[in-house]
Amino acid sequence: MSHPHPELTLPPALPEGALRVVALGGLGEVGRNMAVLEYAGRLLVIDCGVLFPEDHQPGVDLILPDFEYIRDRLDDIEAIVLTHGHEDHIGAVPYLLRLRRDIPLVGSQLTLAFVEAKLKEHRINPLTLAVREGQTEQLGVFECEFVAVNHSIPDALAVAVRTGAGTVLHTGDFKMDQLPLDGRVTDLRAFARLGEAGVDLFMVDSTNAEVPGFVTGEREIGPVLDGVFADSAKRIIVASFASHVHRVQQVLDAAHAHGRKVALVGRSMVRNMTIASELGYLKVPDDVLVDQKQIERLPDDEVVLMCTGSQGEPMAALSRIANNDHKISVGHGDTVILASSLIPGNENAVYRVINGLTRLGARVVHSGNAKVHVSGHASAGELLYCYNILKPRNVMPVHGEVRHLVANAALAVKTGVPADRVVLAEDGVVIDLIDGRARVVGAVPCGYVYVDGSSVGEITEVELKDRRILGEEGFISIFAVVSSADGKVLAGPQIHARGFAEDDAVFEGIMPELVQALEDAARGGASDTHQLQQVVRRIVGRWVSNRLRRRPMIIPVIVEA
Amino acid sequence: MSHPHPELTLPPALPEGALRVVALGGLGEVGRNMAVLEYAGRLLVIDCGVLFPEDHQPGVDLILPDFEYIRDRLDDIEAIVLTHGHEDHIGAVPYLLRLRRDIPLVGSQLTLAFVEAKLKEHRINPLTLAVREGQTEQLGVFECEFVAVNHSIPDALAVAVRTGAGTVLHTGDFKMDQLPLDGRVTDLRAFARLGEAGVDLFMVDSTNAEVPGFVTGEREIGPVLDGVFADSAKRIIVASFASHVHRVQQVLDAAHAHGRKVALVGRSMVRNMTIASELGYLKVPDDVLVDQKQIERLPDDEVVLMCTGSQGEPMAALSRIANNDHKISVGHGDTVILASSLIPGNENAVYRVINGLTRLGARVVHSGNAKVHVSGHASAGELLYCYNILKPRNVMPVHGEVRHLVANAALAVKTGVPADRVVLAEDGVVIDLIDGRARVVGAVPCGYVYVDGSSVGEITEVELKDRRILGEEGFISIFAVVSSADGKVLAGPQIHARGFAEDDAVFEGIMPELVQALEDAARGGASDTHQLQQVVRRIVGRWVSNRLRRRPMIIPVIVEA
Repeated sequence: MSHPHPELTLPPALPEGALRVVALGGLGEVGRNMAVLEYAGRLLVIDCGVLFPEDHQPGVDLILPDFEYIRDRLDDIEAIVLTHGHEDHIGAVPYLLRLRRDIPLVGSQLTLAFVEAKLKEHRINPLTLAVREGQTEQLGVFECEFVAVNHSIPDALAVAVRTGAGTVLHTGDFKMDQLPLDGRVTDLRAFARLGEAGVDLFMVDSTNAEVPGFVTGEREIGPVLDGVFADSAKRIIVASFASHVHRVQQVLDAAHAHGRKVALVGRSMVRNMTIASELGYLKVPDDVLVDQKQIERLPDDEVVLMCTGSQGEPMAALSRIANNDHKISVGHGDTVILASSLIPGNENAVYRVINGLTRLGARVVHSGNAKVHVSGHASAGELLYCYNILKPRNVMPVHGEVRHLVANAALAVKTGVPADRVVLAEDGVVIDLIDGRARVVGAVPCGYVYVDGSSVGEITEVELKDRRILGEEGFISIFAVVSSADGKVLAGPQIHARGFAEDDAVFEGIMPELVQALEDAARGGASDTHQLQQVVRRIVGRWVSNRLRRRPMIIPVIVEA
Repeated sequence: MSHPHPELTLPPALPEGALRVVALGGLGEVGRNMAVLEYAGRLLVIDCGVLFPEDHQPGVDLILPDFEYIRDRLDDIEAIVLTHGHEDHIGAVPYLLRLRRDIPLVGSQLTLAFVEAKLKEHRINPLTLAVREGQTEQLGVFECEFVAVNHSIPDALAVAVRTGAGTVLHTGDFKMDQLPLDGRVTDLRAFARLGEAGVDLFMVDSTNAEVPGFVTGEREIGPVLDGVFADSAKRIIVASFASHVHRVQQVLDAAHAHGRKVALVGRSMVRNMTIASELGYLKVPDDVLVDQKQIERLPDDEVVLMCTGSQGEPMAALSRIANNDHKISVGHGDTVILASSLIPGNENAVYRVINGLTRLGARVVHSGNAKVHVSGHASAGELLYCYNILKPRNVMPVHGEVRHLVANAALAVKTGVPADRVVLAEDGVVIDLIDGRARVVGAVPCGYVYVDGSSVGEITEVELKDRRILGEEGFISIFAVVSSADGKVLAGPQIHARGFAEDDAVFEGIMPELVQALEDAARGGASDTHQLQQVVRRIVGRWVSNRLRRRPMIIPVIVEA
């Protein structure tokens, strides 16, 4: 297996008749999935999603794939193929279309409906081509066949891309539930047929490659929900991902079976489920859905509230309910169900929500104490099936952190794929498929692009480092006006500190030394305010370090007057 | 069950012959465990630990119990009983002894050795009384009997406290491994005897009350470690808690069995294991321990490095090894074992370490893919045994977040303890044991006390809120000197922003408006710099919000000259 982090240089020109693959996101993280295929000078983009920030990226709203590699080649893009409607696959589409609005979007009906709703908020009206499983479309030089896959959102597709250089099969996100609620299984017949014909490069979801065995079937959730509903005497609140149509379907069915009504809470939940029911993916039992006003008039034992916030997002309905800071209140005897996985990194936030709800008297049912959620990604056992059915000539694990990619690569090798045919790459690494063999040939710059407020890509690691320092240590600003004539301090020094000291009085002790040092420096011929600022920084820094054992950011501002 | 968060007022005076219990930490969080018992005007403290901060407490080093409740009563304290040597039970002792140095410390040999080593760093030489299981000591008005319990550190004790008001049994941290490595089981015979005599208040560890069943035996770890050692061809690095003597013992034994030498890495690891082996708790096989210099001379397949950092602590050895920033380097074929639980909240940090090590080519074995660690806290099944053997008259769940305390309370009720005899309390809630009945009678103020650098208790929620704003939004400071005569701007405005903008040039557009507004305000009779600062704050705030969609901290400093 080629090492994920070799010392790579810019790749050579792509040889005639060869295929190039570059991931601009999703390799080395779970999110911002985006792959760019190149053949005969033309580009095909597969997915264009966002990544949500971690705690070492404070204040960041979203993280985008790095479009730099294609910025000068936007006109070469034949289309963006979207495998399914999750944010980590469609969330960055608006930012790419801002660069070129008429790139065609290709995907299933539900996927396009979700992305169009999102684009409307950005005032973009895209060109789209809706496709179904089994359908084949010629997108410029790329012949794309779409294959049904089963995932935690309906209408997900894998895509087989045929070019003169060979056939690439990209799974998108998928699992292999053999008894899915909608009966739409991952089409292993198609996988077999493609395998027979020959898959030259298999790009495969790695998210659960470390997890042994098989994902529990969605059908096993229903009875569990049913049991929870059965012994709930008062109100039931269910939190889930706003796009999980099947989970919402199960809640609607359980509510219907127990004579309860459901109100959807939260903008994204309402928007997505309205789309899903209009398109027939969500089947709403007779008048089980009511609005919030209506539900407030119902007795507790007829109420179900379906909301977002299962990851502890502080602004989401559930967190505010847990903080008693929402018009929906929770009390003794109420039941709250977190029908979702706990995404690593969200534990503190989620446990704060669970503790808050428990403190208010609610019973909280979650993946830690009941089987109310199953993953949407194939576990190791399912991936082995894929490899054996496809017998791919080359494998490229996608969608995951390094540990996931490496685990997936090991599975491929176990099924007999030669280790030197399994390409381990991270974002920006360039893979060329030449004469049926995939190799790492170089790398292009590929960084994190931060969306922060209205700024896109302006926040860099420098600002994030400043934020971490400010966030952990606070800052001290020192302001003084010195006479340009004789260097005497005319005003100040004023010291303002935030984030670490009770009050600024603590600094009075240092004032005389500061004034002295400034005037000495001036007399000593410190020719500009910059030098004076260095003096101040040194004195205050040393004092704070010795006296308070702290390393705050120090901002001296010396003005000459 | 009394609600954990009623509207509580200060408690009435403690009636003659009654016993009062107040937890100053550990109820509502996992850490900073401290309970204060009061009888006949005298106090007994059980444990005095620290809590480690979460990501919403940036820059905080440690969190202490709130000593305010006992600050004026230090001379009433008969002793501090320490149940075992973990930081969350002994870490705050130095801060309490700073208030009164001669409070006697009572605990087992190993516990006292760990706390004395810690106190030495604070230059405190404590009064101590070493006790063993089965021993009874009269500590003033409190008759204390010490009972062996099994935990993830040797020599842990529960304590039964007899007073005229009744008997309290406090488990400390414990589990009930029936085949522990050192053969020292939790003494259920003593529990039975105490139960026969009558336990009026049972204070019991709740950490794993949500976890069904029983904790896997420590003995099952050995074979797993053995298997990992067996198929490791190159170096082995094991990370674990620095106090987990038994885990280190297992690593030493496995190393010995496979002809490898072990070097201990990290100050706390070396210090604790030196103490443990000197006292005979750690049995070091003949010359299996070597120092780092020696081990670097050995061939890879004879090397084991035992280090800290299993929680992804950025400064610990393992994180630095994973970042290639440590003299110990890891490469292809090396094996890293994280022999510890993953404490909620540390996931991001730990996965960053695992990804880093994987990227360097190492095989990483952790609780997610192998049974290399078991918890030190009794699961639900074990707690049921305790309740049934003790048949306590009143129960007070301790050590846990609200969800853990509530789960533990439910277990007590299941075994037949009347619900109104199970008191759910959080930090500062006052429980009185009167005529054999425990009731919540009020609450005393009990906040978080933050240690930050050399400051103790100076950081408040205000500073933490400032840090969160600074960390997420950054700040803008605006300096200007205005003439006290005519309000003309003599110097500045200078704008300095950190944490969000590429450079300060972005602010040039706002300067004219600022100057104008300042001079208008002055002409308009703005009588002091405070009013001028408000003007600046308003203008800059509105501009940043509209232009950048950000809400940074704004610090205007206007000086009159």
